[in-house]
Amino acid sequence: MSDGLNMSLRIRRTPYTNRVEKAGVRGFSVVNHMLLPKAFQTTVEEDYWHLKNHVQIWDVSCQRQVEIRGPDALRLIQWMTPRDICRCEIGQCMYIPITDVDGGLINDPVLLKLSEDHFWLSIADSDVLLYAKGISIGMGLDVSIEEPDVSPLAVQGPKAEDLLAKIFGEDVRDIKFFKFGWIDFAGTKQLISRSGYSRQGGFEIYLKGSHLGEALWDLIWESGKSFNILPGCPNLIERIEGGLLSYGNEMTRENNPLEIGLGKFCKLDGTIDFIGRNSLQKIAADGVKRKIMGILFDEGRCTTCSNPWPVKVGDQKVGYITSAIWSPRFETNVALSMIDRNFWDVGQTVSLQIPERGFSSGEIVEIPF
Amino acid sequence: MSDGLNMSLRIRRTPYTNRVEKAGVRGFSVVNHMLLPKAFQTTVEEDYWHLKNHVQIWDVSCQRQVEIRGPDALRLIQWMTPRDICRCEIGQCMYIPITDVDGGLINDPVLLKLSEDHFWLSIADSDVLLYAKGISIGMGLDVSIEEPDVSPLAVQGPKAEDLLAKIFGEDVRDIKFFKFGWIDFAGTKQLISRSGYSRQGGFEIYLKGSHLGEALWDLIWESGKSFNILPGCPNLIERIEGGLLSYGNEMTRENNPLEIGLGKFCKLDGTIDFIGRNSLQKIAADGVKRKIMGILFDEGRCTTCSNPWPVKVGDQKVGYITSAIWSPRFETNVALSMIDRNFWDVGQTVSLQIPERGFSSGEIVEIPF
Repeated sequence: MSDGLNMSLRIRRTPYTNRVEKAGVRGFSVVNHMLLPKAFQTTVEEDYWHLKNHVQIWDVSCQRQVEIRGPDALRLIQWMTPRDICRCEIGQCMYIPITDVDGGLINDPVLLKLSEDHFWLSIADSDVLLYAKGISIGMGLDVSIEEPDVSPLAVQGPKAEDLLAKIFGEDVRDIKFFKFGWIDFAGTKQLISRSGYSRQGGFEIYLKGSHLGEALWDLIWESGKSFNILPGCPNLIERIEGGLLSYGNEMTRENNPLEIGLGKFCKLDGTIDFIGRNSLQKIAADGVKRKIMGILFDEGRCTTCSNPWPVKVGDQKVGYITSAIWSPRFETNVALSMIDRNFWDVGQTVSLQIPERGFSSGEIVEIPF
Repeated sequence: MSDGLNMSLRIRRTPYTNRVEKAGVRGFSVVNHMLLPKAFQTTVEEDYWHLKNHVQIWDVSCQRQVEIRGPDALRLIQWMTPRDICRCEIGQCMYIPITDVDGGLINDPVLLKLSEDHFWLSIADSDVLLYAKGISIGMGLDVSIEEPDVSPLAVQGPKAEDLLAKIFGEDVRDIKFFKFGWIDFAGTKQLISRSGYSRQGGFEIYLKGSHLGEALWDLIWESGKSFNILPGCPNLIERIEGGLLSYGNEMTRENNPLEIGLGKFCKLDGTIDFIGRNSLQKIAADGVKRKIMGILFDEGRCTTCSNPWPVKVGDQKVGYITSAIWSPRFETNVALSMIDRNFWDVGQTVSLQIPERGFSSGEIVEIPF
């Protein structure tokens, strides 16, 4: 079934993998040592239009939770992020960059505040648990740090609210963006947030209890048929058009949050302290040397960007492409790129060096597209 | 080419990936956010016999290095491992479990001592760099912790020594097991160790400088033709038969080093201190409750173990299989398993519950097989 990806225990299946396979998954990626479905029976373009018009069910179990509890939980998390989390309320989700001493990005999780001393970090692809544990051990903090048996299932698209209201009751409509509430399912209370890795609206159910996974999938799937539900996954076209960044693609430890457009989440006025503060204050004072920009380019449908494609102006390398795909809406290729200062003007002409394709001409634009 | 694995920048290519593709790779795994080839043109059995009789070239760049340098480097690493590293000499490799506060395994890297204050940890599949950074930040240590541009290329099999002596000179023959030396390549000095993830002998070249990757591959490939060289990768049959454990398969943070047979690498007499010492002392005093054992079972060629297969005695679950495959040498299936105390006797009959196959009868054996 999955010819190109070698399977073993190390690449963890999820509570939904059996269902995902039954639904005809054609490929996976690996995130946080776990399978993430990447393609079903439709093309990425068909999938894109479906996501924008209907509703999809996504196995995003790989968004693992790092559960941090105890008297020092808030202190530890604040130490890990430049964002001021002291005003985060119980029931709130907060996107928080996590930084290294030099300001480099370790991860960009969503923080969920379950109680005053109980948090989840819903992480992108790096072992934040080990970073948190290391800091905690080194500082002698009074916290527990574990990966709970929680596997998010996303329901995304414009019909997601109607579908989930039908299944779990009208109260889900009252959940505001980046807030969470609770639903009853199979005799358990389960956390549900209005969030997800698309710009089409929707929810994520943080299912606690792997044994309930197939029942939850089946319930949503069956009820979803009248809403034209399909199995899906984060859609590369929709993600790039929407300017949704991806850890490991648009950012790594080589990047600071300021250059990837996360300056608004960095409190650098000295009122909070965190790992990398001095470095980020200096970067902010000097001004970033490069930043994430969009690029439009047209040379037929582009291939997958699995190496950073050089971006040039004349003979000078001025940046690189991190993610790119053909956009059926714009009828051209859309790309996210890291571009040097002096070349940020919208309309700047650049040339892209695409493997096996030679040079294409492109144009700098703002993101989201 | 790689239909089942979705590609992106996040899943990093290696300095050898172009060559691996040219050599006809049929599939990859992902380790440390990087591609690991898993199959070429031969079957896993053909590959097994070839590895045992000839020589292979393996792209094991995913064995990333965590470089720890500075006055506190030795102190930090000793704090991370139960193994006494004070007698590790410059030029030596040492297999060191890395533990959590509760004794759970974070990783099982090979330590390379480059100088008194300069080490590499050649890691299995978890972000040891983040653990080390966290501890260092928390303790305020004087070390730098980075991932250098080092990409190991393994040359494995009984003809590896002859091949490398032909290319790099007779001195490579003098490198003892788990020691390293230096070779000249393209005007650079490169580290070479007698080591590798097989029991067939061989070397690993820790190539520094990605730009040299294809030239190194080509040199070994061309010179290797007269030795019947083939492209390869860690072979599951050979690994299981040889009792080589794999982080993420045979061990996770749920396992302590004592139960997976690494007790000899744990110095618990109180002469060194490390994270998890108290927990491991208690586990050692109580005796482990389960440990890694081999199992032989015969019911035709088994499928891939991508879920822990339950192991039973009568109606009682007494353990689970972590890795299994058909062994052409033993003409039966061989498996690694975690088995509860009281069921460790060689010859113990067990029954295995294999998905879609029902029950098979098996027999407990020692490892290596």
